[in-house]
Amino acid sequence: MKIGIVGCAGRMGRMLVNETAKTAGCEVGGGTDLAGSPFIGKDVTLIAGLEESGVLVGDDPRALFEAVDAVIDFTAPAATMNHAKLAAETGKIHVIGTTGLSNDQKAELKVAAKTATIIFAPNMSVGVNLAFALVEKVAAILDKDTADIEIVEMHHKHKVDAPSGTALGLGEAAAKGRGVDLDAVSVRSRDGHTGARENGTIGFATLRGGDVVGDHTVVFACEGERIEITHKASSREVFAKGAVRAAKWAEGKAPGLYSMRDVLGI
Amino acid sequence: MKIGIVGCAGRMGRMLVNETAKTAGCEVGGGTDLAGSPFIGKDVTLIAGLEESGVLVGDDPRALFEAVDAVIDFTAPAATMNHAKLAAETGKIHVIGTTGLSNDQKAELKVAAKTATIIFAPNMSVGVNLAFALVEKVAAILDKDTADIEIVEMHHKHKVDAPSGTALGLGEAAAKGRGVDLDAVSVRSRDGHTGARENGTIGFATLRGGDVVGDHTVVFACEGERIEITHKASSREVFAKGAVRAAKWAEGKAPGLYSMRDVLGI
Amino acid sequence: MKIGIVGCAGRMGRMLVNETAKTAGCEVGGGTDLAGSPFIGKDVTLIAGLEESGVLVGDDPRALFEAVDAVIDFTAPAATMNHAKLAAETGKIHVIGTTGLSNDQKAELKVAAKTATIIFAPNMSVGVNLAFALVEKVAAILDKDTADIEIVEMHHKHKVDAPSGTALGLGEAAAKGRGVDLDAVSVRSRDGHTGARENGTIGFATLRGGDVVGDHTVVFACEGERIEITHKASSREVFAKGAVRAAKWAEGKAPGLYSMRDVLGI
Amino acid sequence: MKIGIVGCAGRMGRMLVNETAKTAGCEVGGGTDLAGSPFIGKDVTLIAGLEESGVLVGDDPRALFEAVDAVIDFTAPAATMNHAKLAAETGKIHVIGTTGLSNDQKAELKVAAKTATIIFAPNMSVGVNLAFALVEKVAAILDKDTADIEIVEMHHKHKVDAPSGTALGLGEAAAKGRGVDLDAVSVRSRDGHTGARENGTIGFATLRGGDVVGDHTVVFACEGERIEITHKASSREVFAKGAVRAAKWAEGKAPGLYSMRDVLGI
Repeated sequence: MKIGIVGCAGRMGRMLVNETAKTAGCEVGGGTDLAGSPFIGKDVTLIAGLEESGVLVGDDPRALFEAVDAVIDFTAPAATMNHAKLAAETGKIHVIGTTGLSNDQKAELKVAAKTATIIFAPNMSVGVNLAFALVEKVAAILDKDTADIEIVEMHHKHKVDAPSGTALGLGEAAAKGRGVDLDAVSVRSRDGHTGARENGTIGFATLRGGDVVGDHTVVFACEGERIEITHKASSREVFAKGAVRAAKWAEGKAPGLYSMRDVLGI
Repeated sequence: MKIGIVGCAGRMGRMLVNETAKTAGCEVGGGTDLAGSPFIGKDVTLIAGLEESGVLVGDDPRALFEAVDAVIDFTAPAATMNHAKLAAETGKIHVIGTTGLSNDQKAELKVAAKTATIIFAPNMSVGVNLAFALVEKVAAILDKDTADIEIVEMHHKHKVDAPSGTALGLGEAAAKGRGVDLDAVSVRSRDGHTGARENGTIGFATLRGGDVVGDHTVVFACEGERIEITHKASSREVFAKGAVRAAKWAEGKAPGLYSMRDVLGI
Repeated sequence: MKIGIVGCAGRMGRMLVNETAKTAGCEVGGGTDLAGSPFIGKDVTLIAGLEESGVLVGDDPRALFEAVDAVIDFTAPAATMNHAKLAAETGKIHVIGTTGLSNDQKAELKVAAKTATIIFAPNMSVGVNLAFALVEKVAAILDKDTADIEIVEMHHKHKVDAPSGTALGLGEAAAKGRGVDLDAVSVRSRDGHTGARENGTIGFATLRGGDVVGDHTVVFACEGERIEITHKASSREVFAKGAVRAAKWAEGKAPGLYSMRDVLGI
Repeated sequence: MKIGIVGCAGRMGRMLVNETAKTAGCEVGGGTDLAGSPFIGKDVTLIAGLEESGVLVGDDPRALFEAVDAVIDFTAPAATMNHAKLAAETGKIHVIGTTGLSNDQKAELKVAAKTATIIFAPNMSVGVNLAFALVEKVAAILDKDTADIEIVEMHHKHKVDAPSGTALGLGEAAAKGRGVDLDAVSVRSRDGHTGARENGTIGFATLRGGDVVGDHTVVFACEGERIEITHKASSREVFAKGAVRAAKWAEGKAPGLYSMRDVLGI
């Protein structure tokens, strides 16, 4: 299976090249960078720290989609929307890990998915998606008068928003398990005289510091016991791993818009 | 629903009386202690730190089984086997949290369960049983070449065996999820030159100290990420809570031998 | 050494009676409750769950101070100020774990401490006070461009303020170690678009749920590593233990106002 | 300050080049690799992923020592002993992070340190060395009847020995704080019927899995509370950081054999 990487010269792009190259049954079929980049014409695998492959960095995404079976995309919303159109036109697999898409852009993905096989997930890690499933299950079993749900996360000092998208995703999974709307029950921070905790709320707490890739814990606190589901990412490689796994899973699948939970069957 | 407590004057018995008294829809219907105990004839709820109820401690388990709908039993194996026979003869609910039953005794429970509704679980905590279910599920999804399973537990300094029965239960859940036999894959401790970790093994690590009631964590360690399922018990009350929940669940159920996972539907 | 307990019939008072009774070299010399309390005239140790001692609950604090070597006090600010005056007049040891004293009241303690040996600490736990010392030390070594300090705490669902007083105490210890003012650098919560973390800030995160007695962690997050100092309280007994330790330490000390860090020599 | 890196083409060597290049006041003054390596003659910074500096990889350690102010060395025992002699002959700074030196080799370092300024530490991380100091301090304050000391660590699946050298170092720090010999009190693993925990012992527990760089926690478990000191390494970069910090600290210091605790002043 030939996999192309858009934005292959960036930090995440190089990881995707590495992950593709080392996955059995996959090969790096091409890569692009922005027109004018100093990396255009360089060897895709060499700049990713691997041996030379003779595959050179291009600046034409359409040519890339035509040359490969699947394209992995961790770029930016505007570029991703353009890539999705190319996927639709070429009928190829498009694995999207780009974050920050607007609701309109997400709607456009559904249109593209009529003729492209699109897997879209803001967090491609197998572990995080498994955590989503576990949290939903536990929240469905432990009712709001039994268990207080709290979500705490820590990320590196450069992160500019709080709580993280993944923490909110865990909150949504918990709310879904309980059949409630997250916005109606979430307590996004606490400071000062808060009063006693209200049953049924879902609390968030955010830590920032150092170079922490991403730690998340969901606590179900009951009288006399706590259950915690924790995910710790130690490397952005897990996103690359998830993306390549998604690309392989998509081979032969009908066009459509899929999630990582579809990929993992959970 | 009338609930009787055998061994109601002991530490666990008093907790069971308290939990029963405060649970909606339940009342303390009686209690027994060993013949000759100084508590015979005392008020069951008063000695548990509650207001007087007029229900007195007796020494005849058969009379207790006849007087109530369900009996909760955290006593000792020999006494429990006698109680199970009384449950069979009276057709009542028997909730058993007694530990240390032999395989023969467990087989006898099946016989009694032909005419009694028996719930038997060495650990009645809702949280621990939920953890068993989660661990089995994750172990089934993350194969042995993807995830290394490690189980770490901490208990108080007085505990005399290692790993804890609950840690072994978590290991069995993990092994079941993978379709392997725990004994064949478990690494019960590590010391010295161990060599690299072998894929598919399940490791145990034991800490002892202070008055820790019981902390357990199952780690699924993958490349780039970890998923952890943690249970922390802060009070033995959780066993009482689980037992009363089991008694309520059993109301109206057909005779049979059930587990806490049946009670919880997980 | 004879120790008296003011407010000996309350939950904390009974713990103090127990702790005193079981500490070598100490005996329960008396106890008081509010005039009109149903416990006046009852046996101090019996109502604390111990054997009868013949020492009865009184309602006159002055008589108590005169009868004992030291008084332990976890009551309320107004009562405590009255007790401090009695300590000053009788020249006795006064161990104060009362919380919520105003700055004026704290100033009054200094006056009383001219003739009384007063140990005052809002948190008497040995472990928490040790954590204060460790945090101050680490904060002094790891400068603000090296380590990001984050403090996370969890308490039971009934707690009405955030962050906890102990979390703020840990923040003050960190600020002291760095020679800065906590108020000038603290980030009490995060929500929404916060921007990147500013060097030198001290962040707080608060979780609430279940019956957690009190967990605190201070994270020093650096590039490539984290150091964490964690304190977990499993029982309010630790406050009683600290108070009795303080009373024993104070024996023979000159009048003055001392802290738990003086008691512990840290 | 000019810093040279022996073994600069290896994984750790490249990290050291990077760390040196980005540290204010330091520049990469040279690097060596084994004679015959394909990297001889390549640009030292280019192969480390940085811009070209014109400094080329050599194969003569003596020339390197002569050309720079300090040499950082994470190679192998035999090579390191040779480098220490060169440091002694040239009177330069030699920062050694090499592990596995024999006692004889350590003794030889003392000889070399008569004319060289040598900093030797099997773990150069600032955080780990700080943890050693904290553990020693806490162990000195909390006596053996108060606190049970347990050390748990987790490392990647490829690690072949247990417990880790750092875990043993933490155990030694704890034993030192208590004035006891670690070998006399350590419990290296637990399995089966262990009996109750003996006061004064120091327990170890080892987890292995995934690609965990290194997590260590020392638990001081008391009645009613726990204090924990945790170190989490997320990148081997911390060893490079510590080494460059050591080199800078050594500038102008008299010849001698120093440790990281000397460097950090703790």
